This record gives sequence, C-alpha cells and structure tokens, in this order.
Amino acid sequence: MPRYAKRVGRKVGLSPGTLIAGESKRTGPVGIAVIDYNEVLFNERIIARVEDVLPYRDSPTVSWINIDGIHDLALIDQIGTHFGLHPLVMEDIATAGQRPKIEDFGDYLFITLTMLEIAPSGQVEHDEISLLVGSNYVLSFQESTGDCFNPVRERLRSGKGKLRKSGSDYLAYALIDTVVDNYFVVLEKLGEHFETLQEQVVADPTPQTLHTINRLKSDMLFIRKAVWPLRDVIAGLQRGDSQLMTRPTEIYLRDVHDHVIQVIDTIETFRDMLSGMLDIYLSSVSNRLNSVMKVLTIIATIFIPLTFIAGVYGMNFRYMPELEWPFGYPIIMALMFAIGLGMLVWFRRKNWL
Amino acid sequence: MPRYAKRVGRKVGLSPGTLIAGESKRTGPVGIAVIDYNEVLFNERIIARVEDVLPYRDSPTVSWINIDGIHDLALIDQIGTHFGLHPLVMEDIATAGQRPKIEDFGDYLFITLTMLEIAPSGQVEHDEISLLVGSNYVLSFQESTGDCFNPVRERLRSGKGKLRKSGSDYLAYALIDTVVDNYFVVLEKLGEHFETLQEQVVADPTPQTLHTINRLKSDMLFIRKAVWPLRDVIAGLQRGDSQLMTRPTEIYLRDVHDHVIQVIDTIETFRDMLSGMLDIYLSSVSNRLNSVMKVLTIIATIFIPLTFIAGVYGMNFRYMPELEWPFGYPIIMALMFAIGLGMLVWFRRKNWL
Amino acid sequence: MPRYAKRVGRKVGLSPGTLIAGESKRTGPVGIAVIDYNEVLFNERIIARVEDVLPYRDSPTVSWINIDGIHDLALIDQIGTHFGLHPLVMEDIATAGQRPKIEDFGDYLFITLTMLEIAPSGQVEHDEISLLVGSNYVLSFQESTGDCFNPVRERLRSGKGKLRKSGSDYLAYALIDTVVDNYFVVLEKLGEHFETLQEQVVADPTPQTLHTINRLKSDMLFIRKAVWPLRDVIAGLQRGDSQLMTRPTEIYLRDVHDHVIQVIDTIETFRDMLSGMLDIYLSSVSNRLNSVMKVLTIIATIFIPLTFIAGVYGMNFRYMPELEWPFGYPIIMALMFAIGLGMLVWFRRKNWL
Amino acid sequence: MPRYAKRVGRKVGLSPGTLIAGESKRTGPVGIAVIDYNEVLFNERIIARVEDVLPYRDSPTVSWINIDGIHDLALIDQIGTHFGLHPLVMEDIATAGQRPKIEDFGDYLFITLTMLEIAPSGQVEHDEISLLVGSNYVLSFQESTGDCFNPVRERLRSGKGKLRKSGSDYLAYALIDTVVDNYFVVLEKLGEHFETLQEQVVADPTPQTLHTINRLKSDMLFIRKAVWPLRDVIAGLQRGDSQLMTRPTEIYLRDVHDHVIQVIDTIETFRDMLSGMLDIYLSSVSNRLNSVMKVLTIIATIFIPLTFIAGVYGMNFRYMPELEWPFGYPIIMALMFAIGLGMLVWFRRKNWL
Amino acid sequence: MPRYAKRVGRKVGLSPGTLIAGESKRTGPVGIAVIDYNEVLFNERIIARVEDVLPYRDSPTVSWINIDGIHDLALIDQIGTHFGLHPLVMEDIATAGQRPKIEDFGDYLFITLTMLEIAPSGQVEHDEISLLVGSNYVLSFQESTGDCFNPVRERLRSGKGKLRKSGSDYLAYALIDTVVDNYFVVLEKLGEHFETLQEQVVADPTPQTLHTINRLKSDMLFIRKAVWPLRDVIAGLQRGDSQLMTRPTEIYLRDVHDHVIQVIDTIETFRDMLSGMLDIYLSSVSNRLNSVMKVLTIIATIFIPLTFIAGVYGMNFRYMPELEWPFGYPIIMALMFAIGLGMLVWFRRKNWL
Repeated sequence: MPRYAKRVGRKVGLSPGTLIAGESKRTGPVGIAVIDYNEVLFNERIIARVEDVLPYRDSPTVSWINIDGIHDLALIDQIGTHFGLHPLVMEDIATAGQRPKIEDFGDYLFITLTMLEIAPSGQVEHDEISLLVGSNYVLSFQESTGDCFNPVRERLRSGKGKLRKSGSDYLAYALIDTVVDNYFVVLEKLGEHFETLQEQVVADPTPQTLHTINRLKSDMLFIRKAVWPLRDVIAGLQRGDSQLMTRPTEIYLRDVHDHVIQVIDTIETFRDMLSGMLDIYLSSVSNRLNSVMKVLTIIATIFIPLTFIAGVYGMNFRYMPELEWPFGYPIIMALMFAIGLGMLVWFRRKNWL
Repeated sequence: MPRYAKRVGRKVGLSPGTLIAGESKRTGPVGIAVIDYNEVLFNERIIARVEDVLPYRDSPTVSWINIDGIHDLALIDQIGTHFGLHPLVMEDIATAGQRPKIEDFGDYLFITLTMLEIAPSGQVEHDEISLLVGSNYVLSFQESTGDCFNPVRERLRSGKGKLRKSGSDYLAYALIDTVVDNYFVVLEKLGEHFETLQEQVVADPTPQTLHTINRLKSDMLFIRKAVWPLRDVIAGLQRGDSQLMTRPTEIYLRDVHDHVIQVIDTIETFRDMLSGMLDIYLSSVSNRLNSVMKVLTIIATIFIPLTFIAGVYGMNFRYMPELEWPFGYPIIMALMFAIGLGMLVWFRRKNWL
Repeated sequence: MPRYAKRVGRKVGLSPGTLIAGESKRTGPVGIAVIDYNEVLFNERIIARVEDVLPYRDSPTVSWINIDGIHDLALIDQIGTHFGLHPLVMEDIATAGQRPKIEDFGDYLFITLTMLEIAPSGQVEHDEISLLVGSNYVLSFQESTGDCFNPVRERLRSGKGKLRKSGSDYLAYALIDTVVDNYFVVLEKLGEHFETLQEQVVADPTPQTLHTINRLKSDMLFIRKAVWPLRDVIAGLQRGDSQLMTRPTEIYLRDVHDHVIQVIDTIETFRDMLSGMLDIYLSSVSNRLNSVMKVLTIIATIFIPLTFIAGVYGMNFRYMPELEWPFGYPIIMALMFAIGLGMLVWFRRKNWL
Repeated sequence: MPRYAKRVGRKVGLSPGTLIAGESKRTGPVGIAVIDYNEVLFNERIIARVEDVLPYRDSPTVSWINIDGIHDLALIDQIGTHFGLHPLVMEDIATAGQRPKIEDFGDYLFITLTMLEIAPSGQVEHDEISLLVGSNYVLSFQESTGDCFNPVRERLRSGKGKLRKSGSDYLAYALIDTVVDNYFVVLEKLGEHFETLQEQVVADPTPQTLHTINRLKSDMLFIRKAVWPLRDVIAGLQRGDSQLMTRPTEIYLRDVHDHVIQVIDTIETFRDMLSGMLDIYLSSVSNRLNSVMKVLTIIATIFIPLTFIAGVYGMNFRYMPELEWPFGYPIIMALMFAIGLGMLVWFRRKNWL
Repeated sequence: MPRYAKRVGRKVGLSPGTLIAGESKRTGPVGIAVIDYNEVLFNERIIARVEDVLPYRDSPTVSWINIDGIHDLALIDQIGTHFGLHPLVMEDIATAGQRPKIEDFGDYLFITLTMLEIAPSGQVEHDEISLLVGSNYVLSFQESTGDCFNPVRERLRSGKGKLRKSGSDYLAYALIDTVVDNYFVVLEKLGEHFETLQEQVVADPTPQTLHTINRLKSDMLFIRKAVWPLRDVIAGLQRGDSQLMTRPTEIYLRDVHDHVIQVIDTIETFRDMLSGMLDIYLSSVSNRLNSVMKVLTIIATIFIPLTFIAGVYGMNFRYMPELEWPFGYPIIMALMFAIGLGMLVWFRRKNWL
C-alpha cells in the first residue's frame, strides 16, 4: 500500500462514531499539555490523568490543550464526551489520514490539517492535526510527538504580541498559520534539489535522475493533496459564518489564505518544472545514446568498403594483373587511405561528425 | 462489448416504463428478505410470496425489504404498483448499468448506487443497488445475491448503536455508508499491486507489466464512473431538500460525503501514479533495449577495423614486404591487440561502457 | 472537406432568413406524413399538396406532421409562414449541419437534434431533425428519408401507453427519447469493435489497427459533437421555462436527460480506452520491431569476431607457426565454436535472448 | 515578432487616450464612405473632407460611415471628438491588434471584431474592425481597404429585406453577421487541406507534411483567439443590457451567437483532428524508417554468416582436408545457399519480411 | 532554490506583522521621493529623514511618496505606523515575492504588483511594487532602485493630460497602467526570439535550441504567475467596491483590465507555440539522426554482399574452376559492380535514398 492511499480499509459497516485503533503502532501513555492564559495570567502544565483536563472547559481563561497521540481511544472518548463532541468528530480524530476539512457544530469548530515534515531520509512525512475551537479553549490532537508549534508556545510564554491579549480564535489562527508557514520550509527544502537536478538532467542523465524526478513528482502530488482542501477550509473560516471567529482574526485569516494560495502556486510551478525536466531527461538520454550509435556506425561504415577492397585483392584468381605490379600494394593502400579520408571529409561536411 | 458500456442497446422507442428483461441470465425465484424493527421490536423473515411484502408499506415500524434479483419483472411490477412507484423508476430498477443518481418523488426517494467487489480472479465487479426510501420503509433491489450489508444486519439484530432508535432515513444512510466504506476496501486491494508494480516497472519491465498497468487504469476509469456521480447524489441528500431526511441524519451524510471525496482523491492519485508508471515503463523498456544494442554495437565496432587489417594481410600482392618479415605476424597481432585495447579504453573514457 | 465541418460556406452577407438550398443533392417531391390523434380518434395519411397540411394547425387534436426532405424551400417557406415561424427558424430548418439547440418562441418551441445511424459501410452517418412543438402540433423536418421513429408510430397506432392520452409535449418527448435511445444502439455497434481491437493491438498490431483506432476516435468526436449540446437542450426543456411542457412530461424529460449523460459518459470512456489503445499500439509496434532488430543484431555480433579470426588465419605471412600445426585447423575451428557458444551463453545470461 | 503577439510595445506610460501611429505603414488619404438611408431614402457618397461627415451624427436617417484606414490620427481625433467618443475608444480604434470586445458607453456601443481572410499565399490574415453604434449611426473603422461588407451594401441599395426598414442596431447586427459568416468561408478553405493531408500523412509523410500540420495548428490558434472573445461580445449584446439594441434584433443576435459557437466547435474539431494527424505522422515516419532499417538489417544478417564461412575456407592452414576434396567448392557453395535460404524462410515464418 | 519559489522559508511561527529582513542583501539608506501636486501646484523633492514624509498624509494636495528599498524595516515601521497601516500590510511590504493582490482596508487600499524587466543577460527579472492608495496620497514601495515610472513623472511635471487634474485614484491607475504596458515590452523582447527559434528548430536543431525553448517556457510560467492574479486585482478595483476609486477612473481601469487579458492571451499563445516547437524539435532531431543512420546503413548493406563474393573467391579450394578462367577476375568484378548498382537502383526505387 503506498502512503498516498492511507485510511482505506477501515472496518466496513460499523456503526458511525465507533472508535477503532488506527494503523498507528504507537502505544503507551499519551502526553497532555495544557497552557492556560489570558492577558495577565499564564499557566503551563503537563497532565497525567484525563480528569484534570476537564475543568479547563469552563474556565474563563483561554486554554490550549494539546494531546500528543491518538491511539488511546478511551482517552479520546472521555475528553470528547466531556467537551460534548459529536461521535463522528471523535471517530475522525482517532482515524489518521483525514482530508483537511472544517465543520461547524455551532458551539465549536472542528478543523483537520496536515502538518508536513521532511524526515532525515529526505522523505516527506505528514502528521495529522485535529483542532477543536471552542469559545474559550482549543483542543489539538496530534498523531505523533514532535510538532512545529514551539514558536507559538514561546510567544505565549513571553506574552509579547497580540496572542495573549486575544481569544481562542486567534490562538487557532496562530496554530494554522504556523502549519502553513511550515509548508514553505518543506517546499524550500524540496526546491533545493531542483537546481542540481536541472544540471544533471542535461549533463549527466542517469536512471537515478529519473527516479528523483518521479519521487519529487509524487511528493508534489502528496503535498498538493494536503494543501488544496485547506484553501477552502480557511476560506470557510474567513467568510465569517461562524460566531466563534471574531472580525479582527478574519483579517489575519485572509493573510493565511494568501499564503496557502502561494503554496499552491509554488506546487504547480514545481510540477510544471518537473514535467519539463522529464521531457529534457528523455530527450537527453536518447540524444546521448544516439550520439554513441552514430559515432560507432560511422567507424563501421568507413571500414566496410575498405575491407571489401582488401577482400578483392585476397581473391585467388590466377589472372589478376594488379597483384603482379611492383607498386600494387602501396597503390592500393594509398587508395584505401584516400577512400577512408574522403568518407571522413564527406561525413564532416554533412555535419555528421 | 466491454463491460464499461453496459446498458446500451435497450429496445429503442418503447413506451417509457416498459419493463424489459436485462442482460442478466439469472432466472429462478427471487429472494425477499424483510427486517422489520423499531426500538423495541425486531422481526426478520424470508418471504416467498410477493403478497406478504405489501403489508409492510403501512406498518408503523421501519421495514427494510431487500430484494435479491431484478430479473423477475412481474415481481418488480407488483411491488412497484403497490408502493406507488413511477413507471420510470420501475424501469430503472429492472435495467442494470444505471448511473448513480437520486430522484425525489415527494413521498419517496429513489437512489441508485453501484456496489463494487473484487472477484477471486482479481477483476473488479459491480452490482447495482436501487434504494427506495419512504417514510417508514426502505426497499433495496440488488442485481445478484451476496452483498456487503451483513454488518448492518448485525447492528440491527444486536440493537446497539443509533440504528434501531432511528427512522428509515438513518437506515438508508447506513446502507449507503456501507457501500462507500466498501470502496476503500476495493481500492486497498487494488493498491496492493502498486508497490510490486513500481518495483517491476524499474527492475524487470515485461509486456505483462504494461498489461497490468492498463488493467488498473481501466479499473480506475470504471470505479471513477461509479463514484463521481455519487458525490452529487449524497450532496443532494445532504442539502436537505427532501422531507424524508431528518436533520441529524444530514450530519452523518456529510461524513459519507467526505468519504466519497476521499475515494475520488485516492482514485485520482492512483491514476496519476499509473501515468507516471507508464512513463517509467516506456523509458525502462527503451533503456534496456538500447543498452543491449549499445554493447552489441561496441563489440561489432571493435572487430571491424581489426578484420580490415587481417584482410589487408590476406591480399595476394606479390610484393608485400611485411609478409616476408620474420616477425611480421606477431607484430601485426600485437598491433591489432593494441588497436582493440585502445578502442575499449576510448569507449570507456567516453563513458559508453 | 471532412464531414465534421459541414455547414461552413453558406452564402456570406445574405439577408438572414433567406432560404438557400443546402449541399444536399436531393430533388423530387417531399413526403409529408400526418398523424392526427387524440385518446379516441386516430387518423394517418400521406399528403401531396402543402395546402392540406395547413388545417392541422388549428385542429383540437394533436397532429404530428413529418416532412421528409428539406430541399424544397418553397414548401418550407409556405408551411413556415402558415405556422407563423420566425424567418431564422425557417433558415435553420433548411440548412443542414445545425448544432443541437432549443429556442423558445413563446407559442412554439424550436428544437434541433441529430439522429445517428451506422451505414452498412460501418461509417457513422447523421441526419438532422428539426422539431417544432406547438400547443397541439409537432412539426418534424428530416434531411433524408428513413428514420428511427417507427416504434413511436406503432405506439400511436396501437393506442397503448400514455402517448395517445397525452398532448403534443409528450409526443415531442417520445421522439427525442427515441433519438437518444438510438445513440445507445450506435455506441453498442461501435463498441463491438473494441474487444477485437484490444486483442489485435497487443497480438498483431498492423497499420490497419492504427487506422481503425483513429477512425473510431473521430467517430467519437463526431458523436460527442452531436450529443453534448443536447444535454443543455433537454435540461432547458426540463427546467420548465416553457408553458408548452407540462409537469408530468418534465419527469420523463429528466429520464432522457439521464440517458444523454450516460451516452456522454460512455463516449468519454470510449475515448479514454482509445487513447489507452493508441499507447499500447505504439508500444507494441516498437516492441515488435525492436525484438526483430535485437535478434538480428545478436546473430551479426556473434559472427563478427569469428570472421575476424578466420581473417587472421587467411593472412599470407610467411612465418605463421599455427598454420603449420597438423591440428591447427581443428583447434581454431573448436576455438571459434567455443567463442560463439560463449557469446550465446553470455547473451542468455544477460537475458537478451 | 510573430503576428500572434501584435500590439505589444505601445509606448509605455503615455497618457491614456494618446493617439500614436500603429505599426501600419499605410499613409495617404483615408477613404470615407457614407450610406445614409431609411425605408424610403437612400443616399451613398464618398467623402473627402472630414467636416462633411459630421452632419450625419444628428440626421434622423440611419447613417453608416465606413472609414477605411486608421493611420490618420488627426481624422480619428476629429471624428471622435465630434461624435463624443471617450479618449480610450479613440486610442483603441487607432491601435491594431485589439481583442474583440464590447463596451457600453450609454449613448453609443463600442465593438471590436476581427475580420479574417485567406491571402493568395494561403496565409490567414486579419483586419480589425471597430464599430461604433449610436442610436442613428454606425461608424466602422477598418485597418486596410477591402472588406466583406459588399453584400450588406447591396442589400441596402436594393432595399429588399428588413435592413432598410430597421435601425442602426440591425445594421450593426448585419455587419457582425457578415463577419461571422466569413469565418465559415475561411474554415472551409482551410478544411480543404484536411483530406489531402490525411492521405499524405499515411501514404507519404514528408517533413513538409509536418510543416503544414503545424501551420494549420497555428492558424487555428490564431482564429480561435479572434473568435473566442466574440462569443462573450455577442452574448453581451444579446443579453439586452443596452438601450440601443431593440428586442427583434436580439433574436437575430441569438442566431449569430449560435454561429459563433459553431465556428468554435469546428475549430476545436479541427484542432483535435490535427493532433490526431500529428500522432499518425510521427507513427508513419517512424514506421517507414523502421521498415527500411529492418530490410537492410536482414540483408546484412544473411550475408554475415556466409561471409564467415567463406573466411574459414580462405584460411591458409596447411592441413584443411575439405580444401582438397574434389567437390569441396560446390558442396560449400550449396551449404551457403542452403543457409541463406534457411534464414530467409525463418525470417518469413517469424513474420519479419 | 529557483527564483520561482521565492518567499518560501520565512520564519515559521513568528507573530504576524513581525518585520523581518528579506533575502535582499541591499543595505544603505533608502531613497524617498515625494511629488506633491494638484492642478496648479507642483512640488518634487528628495527626502532624507522619515519625519519629513509624515506631513504629506494630511495635506490637501495629492502626494506620491515613492520609497526605493524595503530593507530598512525601521523606516517601514515608522511610515506604516504614521499612515495607520495594518501590521500585516507592513509585513507584506517588507517581504519580497508576494503574489499580486488587493486588500481594501476602508480608508486605504493595499495593492501588490510585480514589475518585470529583461536584464542585459536576457534573464527576466522582477521587482515587487507595493502601492498604498489613500484618499489624497499614494505610497509606493519598491524592492530595488530603477523603475518604469519615469513617463508618469514626466506627465506630472508637464501638467498635461488628466493626471494633474485628478485625484490619487487616477495616479494609482497611471502607475498600474505603466506596469502593465511594460509587460508588453517584455513580451515583445521575448517574442523576438521566436522567429529565429522557429527556423532553427526545423533547419538546425541543437541541444542549445532545446535549452532556449525550455528557458522561454519557464519565463512564460514566471510571467504568468505575475500576471494572472493581477486580472482579479484590477477586476476588484474596477468593480467599484471601494470608496476610493471614482467612477471615471473605473473606465480607465476597464482599459487596463483589457490589457492584462491581452497579456495573458499572448502568454498562452506563446506557451502553445513553445509546445509546438518542442514537438518539431524532437521530430527534427530524430529525423536528422535517422537520415544519418539510413545512409550509413545503406552503404554498409551494399558492400556486405560484395565482400561476401570477394570472400568466396578468396577461398583456398583446390578445385575452383572460376579461378582458372582467363577472364574470371574481370567477370567477377563486373558482377560485383552490377550487384552494387542493382541495389542502389532498388533502394532508389523504394524511395530509400
């Protein structure tokens, strides 16, 4: 199964909202980190027991509850029930491989995003983020540990900027913005391959080059699949349908929307460049081989008439006057040399060399 | 006739609503299974005579009447007339190869779906399902026996989940959801071919590989044809135009809608990957052949000048001083060896070997 | 001029509505057949003089006036003037090669359709039908004699079904439905070529195969040109803008609309399959040729080193010790045999044979 | 600069409405022809001085003022100022290479069209027409002399048809209709190449054929660029936004709209056919070359083993028993003949000949 | 990193509106030029200290403040704060590589444009322009010194035309118009390559040709990326949503809109032509090589049978009657000549020469 088709094969016909463990092999405890703040207060803690999460639902301060791992279905169920989530939302949180989407349930928004990352192997990896935005809390669920949200945490800790002064909608914006900014980083890293590829493809095309072009092409497909639906998601947020999004935040969302469009533009440009490279690769490979064939054929062709002449004077006829001439041999050798040279000149004049 | 073009050739110019036997060669009795339930009652039976179906139309409980076979036109006509179906609906039920669609007739909804299955031979097969959703019944017609609805039956029997507590609209949703979930299973099975194909296409491309790529491509065309219109069908259901769909069910339909879009996404990704594979296949095949040609041509080219030299010293001129030299033969042999070696070195330096 | 571009070259700058004879070389009298009916009455006659057509305009019964031939411009003019047709409508009727369209003139609808047929030669031929639908009449103009409307005539004669009980709008529907059903027949006949083609393309690709693929491709282009605009025509009819279409007929039109979409789907599938076949054809042809070249080159390559060895021992050096050996000849022959065999083994190991 | 990119390079940053001489090298006087008419009056004259044009603005009759040449900027300026044209309109009139467009300035409509023509050289040439439609006048500006409007002039002179009875809007319609009808003529002339091309491409593909295909392709691009925007122009006119277009004329415009769509359809069909031809051309060329290579290689391959055998018996070993046999020579010759024949038979059986 | 993907990699997760220095390596003072005018007054000065800019915000005259350099973040911050700009706008100004866009902030409009230029090296270079249009000022920020606005400055100095008589909206229009007109210049310069390319591609295709085609293709991609979004930007301006745009200016904007569409049309035509050229290039290259191979193979093929015959008469059989014939040698030579000639004739008749 290629990674592009993840999520196929969930249990068919189960009651919707049934939580089933995903493909993830992760086990062990799930990390729950809570940051609770308003303009003056700031409180950050790691929580071990689920029960301790629940009071944050009704606290007047803004609470960001980040849950690191979606394999503990009991925990998702407990939190979901407490925060009044729809069973389908809980199922979506527990299932990896969701398409980015937004759903408005009135008193909370459910947003799914894909976080991208380049693994040390150069492979593009993804991690799904589910955000639940209520009037005074943001719940974020991640598939695996390690995320790109540290700058947001720092901004919360430092208390600088608008973040501590704003509500949960602005926090949600900040998280989405960070995910989108991270796409630029991933594209930049992939883009670094392009210049070397572009030289390789002309100067020294190997099957490895073709392989790299194809890998980048499928990376682009993969990223595109993650980013395209996000455009509509953010457009939906920004259009102001939801009560939870305040007007000032909408201006910021317009900015994220622009960034997403820029990401899509860049992906499309990369895809166009990769097609162009494939064309040049194929043309280069066939050019190189053809030039090999051409030189070899030219060598063969020059010697074939000469070999024929040598064959003629190797015939055993009794009466062959040339064979008796004292200068027969040097004359014929000179003739052969002249023919060979003549053909070379002709080839060069026809521009075949 | 390829299976992609089924349904062509119905009798031209007949009065609409005329029931004509489809291509199906099935004969024999048609199985009618009724499940009648509400939150407390549950009754499941197999019915032999059509007349016994009719009372379920007006029973206050929800009745799911599943008819296994569409070749008995008299039966369809009888049921259709009793349930007040439009003649065109009856014609559509009896004709295999319908495009997925939804039609709202006020007091009932007519929905056509395609159920997919991978036959043991690896062939993708389809079975058309017609659903008729009334206020307290669901009629389902299937082309052949054997379906993917057993998990739904189990959920009805067990009485767990929302199914027994909800109306006919939720039952219709559950059936559609099961069909759509099954698409993931089919795609997953097809996707298993991809990894091996991707290796084959680079390492050992045979005409068989091309054949497999093309078969998968036409499978994708086929599935796409079944799934694309379904998107609009479910969007139509979910938009809430019909009185028969209750608001809570619409949220569940939104979920199915998401799944259908994911199926379409996966199909498109598979199609893109197959095109990429075709490119690599063609490039691989031509590379392999070209490398054969190249080595062979190199061998030929090395020996052609050598054969020429041998020819020269095979000439019968009376006066050829080299022939008389005591070391003429080893000198010439050494010369030939040097030329052959020189060419090999030159080829290698030019990177042709 | 290919048939795809018919209708080009009408007289430029003429007053609109000027009737000019089309490309058709037909002359001679035009057949006018009238079927006049209501639920109880039925009257069918062939009319010779145009004047006899005119009373049917105002008769309370439904009249279907079928005119077989559009080359008699005086007749079109006379009928058009009597039925109050717009000059542009008369021009359109008289000009072959119209695009399917619908125009609503308030008291009558003008509909253009293309009837397709497979000629005995296998060529797809078309015949344009113009329908004029008034409140109690349908005028139908055909380019040539012979149509697919006989089943409709039979239904009218027999009086069974809804046809005799309904108005002129239902008659128009019945005619359109018959034309659309006929597309399935044409596609089915074309589809029969596909299976043999698909085998041929792999097993025995000849230039004839390419020709057939291209002919089918242009047939598909041609049919698509006739069917695509029809979708909008029927959608327009069905949308209920016109007073002339009654509500029950609109449900039937929805059915025709579905059929047109199925025809379009089938055309697109056929087009996709034809592109796929073209790919396989090109790949097959090049594979076959390459395998020829490969075997031939292998034979040549094996003998070239052997010929060189023979050439060496054909040299006339005075001192060549091997020549004097008693077993020189068999040793060299054995050596040659060994080299030849060695190369064969090497080729086979490299998988080139 | 290819003609496709005309109009690039106007002076950057000039005040809008600044009239600058176009690329046209035409100088000399500009022809002004006025036709002034109503149902009873008809007056046609050639005007030398601009001042004489001006009274027609306010005359109650309909005046068609045709200006043949756009290089006399003073004249355009004078007329424009008198008729109250916006400076941008005057700039657009004076600049060749406009895209077809319509602009509604309330008391006049500004319409730009492209007139196409096939030059004797077979090149498609274009001439831009600017129409200004006021309530009782039509101003038409042409780049060069010679147009396709003579039939309209004839209709005006004869007084037959609706033209003399209608207003300036119908005159504008008649001019547009003539331009569009002329597209059919151009396409018909281009289409004449198609049948010969289609034969050539299969039977005798030369580089010239490729060149013709490419020229036709770029002709199609060129025509498409002229026709596509016209569709929206006429849709705009017909939609009835402007006070200047009367309702009856709108029905005629609908007819032109249909014609434009037919032109676009034909262009698209031609483009599809040209792509198909390119495929066949490439396939034909490679087939022809491959069949040459194949026959040549077969000849070479048959003689290579034979030459080897001859080489063997040309060796100078002292002890070669066959050489002494009395029938050695005919036996070997017969053997060679048998081998050659055997290979021919094998080739034929493998279907390589 | 190719230039197409600029702007990727901004600092992830920073507070929005944080000004960070772009990639630009420019340092040093930033040039600020102010032109302050109304119909009668005109004042042009270079400003060194930021404080001197501020009074222009509230002056009743129209002020065009052009800032040449975006690397001095303190300056942008100071101006932005004084003019009441949104932090995100300041961030966008300071970040190079924005997508063209328009944002309406009520009391000012923020417009981003890309200015294109062909560097002496032939490379297409871009410079981002940010325009801020208030009711009586226009702020313009440029990435680097040197722009195409000098004609606008001249028009302001001369006082001719509408410019001095109109408000800031017309000045903004004039600047945008100048940028768009400049695209025509860039396209014209690129277009000059096309004619030579089109000849080269047929007559003398070199890998350099392929390289040029690809460079032009990516230039087109690049320009398209700059121009496409501009269409919507200007459509947005022209639609009249903003209070800042007066009705007369909207007519002028319609004109710019037309020009942008013409630029897009030209780009698309160029792209189509480049694809066509790529096809011809590939076909030409393979044609040329094939013709080389063909002639060479023909030469080889003629000599192979002749060499075989020479080999036959070089055999050392004791009994070969021909060898003893007095005219054996000339007969065989004549035979060889006849065979060679016969093959040449046959080749020519088969049209292979």
